[in-house]
Amino acid sequence: MMIDYSKYCSNTTRILIPSIARSLLKFVEDREIISFAGGLPDPLLFPINEIKEIVNEILTNHGSEALQYMPSRGILLYLEELRKFLYRNREINTDTSNIVVTTGSQQALDLLGRVLLDEGGYIVVEDPTYIAALNVFKMQRVKIIGIPIDVVGMRIDILEETVKKLGNDGKKIKFVYTIPIAQNPSGVTMSLERKKYLLELAEKYDFLIIEDDAYGMLVFDEHIDTTPLYSLDRYGRVIYIGSLSKVLAPGLRLGHLVAPAPIIEMIEIFKQVTDLHTSAFTQYIAAYAFKRRVIERNIQKMKTIYKLKRDTMIKALEEFLSGLAEWTKPIGGFFIWLKINREIDTDLMLPNAIKRGVMYVPGKGFCINEYCNNTIRLNFSFPSVNQIRLGIAILSEVIRDYTKG
Amino acid sequence: MMIDYSKYCSNTTRILIPSIARSLLKFVEDREIISFAGGLPDPLLFPINEIKEIVNEILTNHGSEALQYMPSRGILLYLEELRKFLYRNREINTDTSNIVVTTGSQQALDLLGRVLLDEGGYIVVEDPTYIAALNVFKMQRVKIIGIPIDVVGMRIDILEETVKKLGNDGKKIKFVYTIPIAQNPSGVTMSLERKKYLLELAEKYDFLIIEDDAYGMLVFDEHIDTTPLYSLDRYGRVIYIGSLSKVLAPGLRLGHLVAPAPIIEMIEIFKQVTDLHTSAFTQYIAAYAFKRRVIERNIQKMKTIYKLKRDTMIKALEEFLSGLAEWTKPIGGFFIWLKINREIDTDLMLPNAIKRGVMYVPGKGFCINEYCNNTIRLNFSFPSVNQIRLGIAILSEVIRDYTKG
Repeated sequence: MMIDYSKYCSNTTRILIPSIARSLLKFVEDREIISFAGGLPDPLLFPINEIKEIVNEILTNHGSEALQYMPSRGILLYLEELRKFLYRNREINTDTSNIVVTTGSQQALDLLGRVLLDEGGYIVVEDPTYIAALNVFKMQRVKIIGIPIDVVGMRIDILEETVKKLGNDGKKIKFVYTIPIAQNPSGVTMSLERKKYLLELAEKYDFLIIEDDAYGMLVFDEHIDTTPLYSLDRYGRVIYIGSLSKVLAPGLRLGHLVAPAPIIEMIEIFKQVTDLHTSAFTQYIAAYAFKRRVIERNIQKMKTIYKLKRDTMIKALEEFLSGLAEWTKPIGGFFIWLKINREIDTDLMLPNAIKRGVMYVPGKGFCINEYCNNTIRLNFSFPSVNQIRLGIAILSEVIRDYTKG
Repeated sequence: MMIDYSKYCSNTTRILIPSIARSLLKFVEDREIISFAGGLPDPLLFPINEIKEIVNEILTNHGSEALQYMPSRGILLYLEELRKFLYRNREINTDTSNIVVTTGSQQALDLLGRVLLDEGGYIVVEDPTYIAALNVFKMQRVKIIGIPIDVVGMRIDILEETVKKLGNDGKKIKFVYTIPIAQNPSGVTMSLERKKYLLELAEKYDFLIIEDDAYGMLVFDEHIDTTPLYSLDRYGRVIYIGSLSKVLAPGLRLGHLVAPAPIIEMIEIFKQVTDLHTSAFTQYIAAYAFKRRVIERNIQKMKTIYKLKRDTMIKALEEFLSGLAEWTKPIGGFFIWLKINREIDTDLMLPNAIKRGVMYVPGKGFCINEYCNNTIRLNFSFPSVNQIRLGIAILSEVIRDYTKG
């Protein structure tokens, strides 16, 4: 007799899985298709030879440690090298006791969700925001409030109105989740003024800020303020999340969380229950990469390539989609946000695009209240320059045909 | 002003963290001390040179894939090689669609906890059982029922009484968590008869079985049945958890979960929300290790060394602790369970042991209802043969002094 396994599932599983399943990030294995869908770095930029040298040295000198069980918070060498790296590159002045190493920044989000959130609580996100962060918060069954963004980031004035109104109803938000630099999916960057305003609000209305700095080192244009909220914060309100996935290699699964010590202590316990610790082997690799300045040397090349790709996409959009759509002009990161000037559903249009050989993520899944049926997230980091030009040309035809029909 | 960060925490965090914090697994960094505490493999058994060769080949031929984002369930090559490995070594006949790769087997437990459990539900474990599994279940705030064990494993007759009694009260257990082979912490192995009885009960009383097979390949004595429950199961009731931490290297953080497809589908979604995926790099390493039969070649040496260490510990216990304590005689695995013939608290005795240069885990944290104040979990896989002899001699003095005092 067939067992109905769903009856053994938790309520969270039963309620949430169908909605979350629809928004899953799929990785296209089909190499024939031009993919603007994922958030993948260009694999040609991986410093493979330097990693090879490092791995040989690690296995020669530290094999027993790199392959062994290690403490949950991270290995000491890695924590110390990461601390210096954050100081050199992100103006983050912290102590190793304020850091937890995570299995990618996704796990940092998940751990924070588990440590901080109760069912029915309130949190704030940018609208639109990163799907996989939304899924973490949904898993905790909280009420998610979306605040609109404009060209200089989250509308902090609207945030203030919102927390004030909630306060009048005796309600409080626990934290604001933000990606201040080259936001995913919109590509927008928060101005220094807004950052300061946000920090003041956090203190005034007693909430925390989760700062997701995935793209902080990938800003191509000059004269842009990229100071993290964490280093501007005088109140101890900011929890900082970083990742090596965009600047070194996602396959190593290395992220980190920088926070006040009492939060780190709680995170550490959840971390141990969750997966004991992140791979000691990949931590050793990255520790050596920090020591040898592999990322700092590689980042200039990365910026040059990604800037070229962004410019190619913007130029192609201007050529093929002027009048038919609007788009953001990110100063860095991986994404451009496209809004088509018609009330079409880009989710329903997707099969047409795939049939013609182009893949994208429909905007709807990133949005809370904003009308996003007519939006698309375009990734420019992964496809080649030629694919970008060709793909946007094809996409414009798909849109034209679809809006005609 | 100092912020009280505990006020931002979830109820689970506030309620559970203090109790879980006390039972955390600490890794001793002090090399002077003889440690019977952790569950660490002997690092001299890591196949470092073979891993070095493999890593060089991977970075030469698959660098772009090994360093990139990959699908949440695992990379195809790894899933396929793992499937064959499980078939060759554990009589497990399954399909890659029934497997999820996890960041160590700890994550397999955590994912199952999240997918299956609701607050207030009932589950069954062996009493005593693995602390880090208990912590996962505690996090889900379920009621944990402990079933005593004897020399041939969990007392299934008592389990039957228990589920019957619960049934009379209109209650049901969701699953039984068991480590059938060389159990952690007791070292006990379940007999074939008990395994069959357990499977029949699962079908009759409609519950699932979570089989933790951490030590299934590390059985030193012959003529011992080591068939996994998974391969004996004709009903689709068993969820199998495996790990490469004991047979290859814990630093790679590779575990896996084999289960009926509907459960795998739900696990996959939680896996994506939790950490997107397990390191592609370490998956590639292990896939090649499977292909080249690295584990199968290495396992004979492992068994020889661990058998020697177990025998050394048993002999030392006989020499130094006869009459003062009783202990289990495991047919494999990493642990011996020691019960002192006095009502002493091994937790309170621990500082005395550490002062004399010996470390162990007090048994209390592993137990549900059993009286365990006078018990100790002894690990024999990590310390050297000389350390084992010396350490047990010291421990016997510590116990003698403590029970005198």
